[in-house]
Amino acid sequence: MTAFAIIGAGAIGGYYGSRLAAAGHDVYFLFRSDAEYVREHGLVVKSPDGDLHLTEINSHEDWHEIPPVDVVFDSVKATANDDVAGRVAAILKPGGTVLLIQNGVNAEGAFAAALPDDATVVGATAFISAERTDRNVVEHFANGQITIGEYAPDYGVAGITARLEQLSQEFIAAGIPVQVEADLLAARWGKLLWNIPFNALCVVLQATTTELISNSETLALVKTMMNETIGIAAADGKVIPVEFVEMLLEGTRQMDPYSPSMKVDFDAGRQLELEALLGAPLRRAETNGAAAPTISAVYRQLRFIDERIANSN
Amino acid sequence: MTAFAIIGAGAIGGYYGSRLAAAGHDVYFLFRSDAEYVREHGLVVKSPDGDLHLTEINSHEDWHEIPPVDVVFDSVKATANDDVAGRVAAILKPGGTVLLIQNGVNAEGAFAAALPDDATVVGATAFISAERTDRNVVEHFANGQITIGEYAPDYGVAGITARLEQLSQEFIAAGIPVQVEADLLAARWGKLLWNIPFNALCVVLQATTTELISNSETLALVKTMMNETIGIAAADGKVIPVEFVEMLLEGTRQMDPYSPSMKVDFDAGRQLELEALLGAPLRRAETNGAAAPTISAVYRQLRFIDERIANSN
Repeated sequence: MTAFAIIGAGAIGGYYGSRLAAAGHDVYFLFRSDAEYVREHGLVVKSPDGDLHLTEINSHEDWHEIPPVDVVFDSVKATANDDVAGRVAAILKPGGTVLLIQNGVNAEGAFAAALPDDATVVGATAFISAERTDRNVVEHFANGQITIGEYAPDYGVAGITARLEQLSQEFIAAGIPVQVEADLLAARWGKLLWNIPFNALCVVLQATTTELISNSETLALVKTMMNETIGIAAADGKVIPVEFVEMLLEGTRQMDPYSPSMKVDFDAGRQLELEALLGAPLRRAETNGAAAPTISAVYRQLRFIDERIANSN
Repeated sequence: MTAFAIIGAGAIGGYYGSRLAAAGHDVYFLFRSDAEYVREHGLVVKSPDGDLHLTEINSHEDWHEIPPVDVVFDSVKATANDDVAGRVAAILKPGGTVLLIQNGVNAEGAFAAALPDDATVVGATAFISAERTDRNVVEHFANGQITIGEYAPDYGVAGITARLEQLSQEFIAAGIPVQVEADLLAARWGKLLWNIPFNALCVVLQATTTELISNSETLALVKTMMNETIGIAAADGKVIPVEFVEMLLEGTRQMDPYSPSMKVDFDAGRQLELEALLGAPLRRAETNGAAAPTISAVYRQLRFIDERIANSN
């Protein structure tokens, strides 16, 4: 059995941590001010893949209560990275793994730099619709697949490592569909292809994905931003097949009206996860000499909006 | 004395029409549902250049009450052009002049096509801060200069014509500062240099000019849009000196926080004057093979916003 710490135990951490705990792993949740409530009432997961009610749960207020673990499962927003990496290092066993569920590119490198040399960072993306509907309740609506790829310095291709194989087997045994990526950076760019246009435009235009895709002007704008993303990924050495554009658009058409995470943050008055999602990709574009005028313009609009949020907080 | 009809008698038409009437011209105002009220109470102008109270005023409900005039002074929004040109033709004396106060490029051509061959279109821009604060009151805050240039087919350079000279003398005699342009298209592009970025971004970002110019990201975005405007004007054969960018930015820094006309329309729930200000310039850019990716992206955002306004009306 593996010892996991779940940091950022919102919907995503709560869901995956519960599945891992139900499968018999030692799982330590950092629940902050909700820790006592969760300890008393247990953690409830409502899911089409089977409900869970964990009554015996390691629910913690603070980092220092968490013992050394093999894997830190970190789904804290990229906006909070600076606070987190050092604390993660303190609870990681020698040779441990940090599984980083985040959007964007560049987070893994910054994280790895803050960890001891024997630690490994695994980048992950979660394709899941879930919500924390109460302090101790996670409602899982659809999907649930997690994609993992091992980080190597400068996003070199790490391949399918033994560590990825083991994580993959543990996830599958816990009922979590998993996809293993040999090339983390390629996976990150693939995810950005959707995330950049829809996160950005949903905030700037105060719209849902369905509104953006139903209007011919914003649809054209989404496509332009996707094509620019393909261009900057290509300059970064990663080929995204252009067919992905139509596939993602068709998938979005079939989705219910959806507010991407940046829009959810905006609506809650929280700072935007802007650097991971747009800033870092644009800096890679600039380094590589790739043009992204539309993404750049929308990024500047969002920086303005984000500053307004900061000033009003 | 010249007979003027003032169409679109809001702040601009009300102000200039009053000055012309006070100077002794025959001025016919189309005041629609406010006509009777204005006729009874007179038209009041409060102005740093001298107040006016016109008690004898030709204030009309409807077009058919207006006799044939030498000059139709039209400051109706470009969004309403389709309705107006034919009606203007019906009240214009043979060989008359339509003075078209509008933003953007292309309005004059469409207008000229709807008028008899012996009519002349003069394009104008007003640099004025004024507001209609009551049904019969126009408050003039600052500036007031009007720029006029004669339209020739396909925006050929018409030069300083006798007609422009006469209008200019009449305006000056009425206390209206006037600048005469030999090249209307060049004047239009010069005005668009400011109008495109500030009108567009003030609406998309729900901001004032001062907010846009105080934030480094939106300032950069404004500059990008100005440089693109210079590029598409150049492709249209009109050179805007790049020094104008810094001059306009400095002028904007010294202005009080300001809502450009498109933002005023947005706040009032009115459709946006989008085609004159951005659509037509972008079509000229496309025709001439000039790149304007940032303006194009913001235009698409505005089309989305404008459709939302249309659907909510």
